[in-house]
Amino acid sequence: MKKLLQLHFSFNGPFGEEMSAALRELAESINHEPGFIWKIWTENADNREGGGIYLFEDEASALAYLDMHAARLKAFGVDEVHSRIFNINAPLTRINNGNTGADVQS
Amino acid sequence: MKKLLQLHFSFNGPFGEEMSAALRELAESINHEPGFIWKIWTENADNREGGGIYLFEDEASALAYLDMHAARLKAFGVDEVHSRIFNINAPLTRINNGNTGADVQS
Repeated sequence: MKKLLQLHFSFNGPFGEEMSAALRELAESINHEPGFIWKIWTENADNREGGGIYLFEDEASALAYLDMHAARLKAFGVDEVHSRIFNINAPLTRINNGNTGADVQS
Repeated sequence: MKKLLQLHFSFNGPFGEEMSAALRELAESINHEPGFIWKIWTENADNREGGGIYLFEDEASALAYLDMHAARLKAFGVDEVHSRIFNINAPLTRINNGNTGADVQS
């Protein structure tokens, strides 16, 4: 069953266009992570927070990514990653035009 | 500027198919909220949590929705809604197939 992973963490930037330029290669690499479907990149320069919302094929791939990403963030000085895993309610999400990761919406 | 609203709260259900059936009309009504673009419905029956991830046209519409929704949840016995507002980094999100709410991806 697909799993949605939400995470956020304290982050000193870069934000905005500078972030887009600096992290482009990282974004491209994420497309190759096992079980990865999509990611929304979240940022809040006012609160100095970064984060992401991801959809994975299953819980195992979501948790494996979280472990890998938390270790990578630690190397950038991010000690604590707040994370949460959810199921998606697909029928309700489809009513509201949310992306359930399904190619065919049945 | 578009704003992403994440929220979650303690919730005793219904979850899954029962939730889909019970909250269908509510989902349809959300499509008519000012500034609303899309919502992903999140649920975690194991942790007894519900939530949502929304994209709005701007911060004012996101905050107005949050106020209205928190009051509505209170009527269902939900006293505390954990929420967070982010910008989306659109160029990175497009690389990772996330839905930025743009009709044309430039």
